[in-house]
Amino acid sequence: MLLEETLKKIRPLDRSIEAEIQRRLDSLTKPRGSLGRLEELARRVALIQHKTPPSLGRKLLFVFAADHGISEEGVSAYPKAVTAQMTTNFLQGGAAINVLARHYGVDLEVVDMGVDFEFSSLNGPRSYKAKRGTNNFASGPAMTREEALHSVETGIGLAQEAASWKLFLLGAGEMGIGNTSSATAVFCALTGLSVREMTGRGTGIDAPTWTRKVSVIEKGLELNQPDPKDPLDVLSKVGGLEIGATVGLILGAAACRIPMILDGYICSSAALLAYRLNPDIKDVLFASHLSAEVGHHSVLNELQLTPLLDLQMRLGEGTGACIAMGLVEAGVKIMREMATFESAGVGEKIL
Amino acid sequence: MLLEETLKKIRPLDRSIEAEIQRRLDSLTKPRGSLGRLEELARRVALIQHKTPPSLGRKLLFVFAADHGISEEGVSAYPKAVTAQMTTNFLQGGAAINVLARHYGVDLEVVDMGVDFEFSSLNGPRSYKAKRGTNNFASGPAMTREEALHSVETGIGLAQEAASWKLFLLGAGEMGIGNTSSATAVFCALTGLSVREMTGRGTGIDAPTWTRKVSVIEKGLELNQPDPKDPLDVLSKVGGLEIGATVGLILGAAACRIPMILDGYICSSAALLAYRLNPDIKDVLFASHLSAEVGHHSVLNELQLTPLLDLQMRLGEGTGACIAMGLVEAGVKIMREMATFESAGVGEKIL
Repeated sequence: MLLEETLKKIRPLDRSIEAEIQRRLDSLTKPRGSLGRLEELARRVALIQHKTPPSLGRKLLFVFAADHGISEEGVSAYPKAVTAQMTTNFLQGGAAINVLARHYGVDLEVVDMGVDFEFSSLNGPRSYKAKRGTNNFASGPAMTREEALHSVETGIGLAQEAASWKLFLLGAGEMGIGNTSSATAVFCALTGLSVREMTGRGTGIDAPTWTRKVSVIEKGLELNQPDPKDPLDVLSKVGGLEIGATVGLILGAAACRIPMILDGYICSSAALLAYRLNPDIKDVLFASHLSAEVGHHSVLNELQLTPLLDLQMRLGEGTGACIAMGLVEAGVKIMREMATFESAGVGEKIL
Repeated sequence: MLLEETLKKIRPLDRSIEAEIQRRLDSLTKPRGSLGRLEELARRVALIQHKTPPSLGRKLLFVFAADHGISEEGVSAYPKAVTAQMTTNFLQGGAAINVLARHYGVDLEVVDMGVDFEFSSLNGPRSYKAKRGTNNFASGPAMTREEALHSVETGIGLAQEAASWKLFLLGAGEMGIGNTSSATAVFCALTGLSVREMTGRGTGIDAPTWTRKVSVIEKGLELNQPDPKDPLDVLSKVGGLEIGATVGLILGAAACRIPMILDGYICSSAALLAYRLNPDIKDVLFASHLSAEVGHHSVLNELQLTPLLDLQMRLGEGTGACIAMGLVEAGVKIMREMATFESAGVGEKIL
């Protein structure tokens, strides 16, 4: 129900203020277009908000954590317990995403979508878990269609809740040992690209582990036969609970017209699922960075998005999204705060 | 004298703490190397400061403004008066660099190195001008060797003064109608690259103006015959007063071991001059972004620097440097603030 309603609410943007936006940008004391992609960011946010200049506000990043049954197959360099340990680290402020969020003024919300651990209710994350991690998709579906739908609708609900505050930007990050395997399976199921081509080193696995990872993902796709025309089927058979929540967050952002800043590889698998559910989500999507994970380039191509940054990062957690939020905010501030040629008494172009 | 002394002080970095730096980075709760260039930034700052983790402090950006006699030739899209008008705009807080400096927490210092305007002494910029702009290098040398030396030593003095505060990062930006012509002449004189290949559209000139710009620069190089082996000769014959100050700032930063964040095209011409005076300056240089100005790529190649950002910007003023300062600071905060595997009780790599 919530998913259906949300998909119906997502429409192409009204572009009637495009000329007004451009006039404003060109009135500012700089050569036309000389701030390049910062101007593109301002222009896109103004279109999404349908407002010139756009408003500022809260930058909010959800970090969705969940475990993956596929980690039983030895596809990650780290033990499964690290998902819960890193979730605790997020809550204690010691992870990379905490440092970057403080630096760029981003609020974090850590959400347990399916970590195989019981957190204390007082100091733990917000929890929406339907189960303690997915099942191993190398021996059956990762979850039921109902569980997949629950994860997506959780994300939609969180986006709606967030949008009712003074929200400026929304972002998503993730934590889940084994989740590059799930994301790769999702991509390959949706696009038909080869698993061998799309599989990367994740957290830094060695060559024999990489070979095993490829064959485990191939086996899972062969066994589950996810239907590429049915994104919810793909999500339930080979996806993850944090991926589902991110799909929902993206759909909710699109329905509420909030700019949505993607993170890296895992987050992009959610974006592609959401895109296949309704391609009009693209109007609110911003690709923060090109991940060092080998297949990310192909996914961004599929989404026709050009990343803002290439810093050879491959951590996830929302680290790329966080840096990009700083850039989007900078673009909007340019549009809001710069003097015009007229107000500053600066001479205009003569040649 | 000051230039000679400063050049003598610039030595290759002591790299004895490299292993200690890497151990620290690898103890943090993230897969090794997964923060890519943010880790590179932290590593480089730690080496420059010879300290693990490095200290934070003030981020200071000098904006050097000066006029260029070459603007008489009609090589810019904007009238010469814009140099003074934009300098006033910087002081009033309405330019792009002001917005970005506020956003990224960077302190600005606007310096008049040779603007053809008398600013009020109360509200004006700091002034070190030896003359009200260079002479037209299409009909003789831009300045005397003494004037060039004065501009360089001014920059050295400012770096020394800045370094005595709690300084973390130093950056340089510029304003000067006509200065892409001077920068291009400097590059071509130093490298032998063709003027036609290196000349860009600057603030956005049309095709006939571009053709004129190429022939004016060629004429200036032919007439003045700057000696590629003598950077001060190149600076004085075809350079600019703001370019000289930036050369000095870079040399001073290298002598005082302060990370120096370059801006775009004009700033890189100063970096190449400084590099030719003493190649060991490279240890403190950070290339912030790849400018949309066509020749910038070749200059960064010459300096063997890989830019952090490519946002298709071509404004100058220090706008690229400002954004990059935020990234360098983020890298250092990662190294200072993240929990270690041990302190956070997170499991280490098993495969």
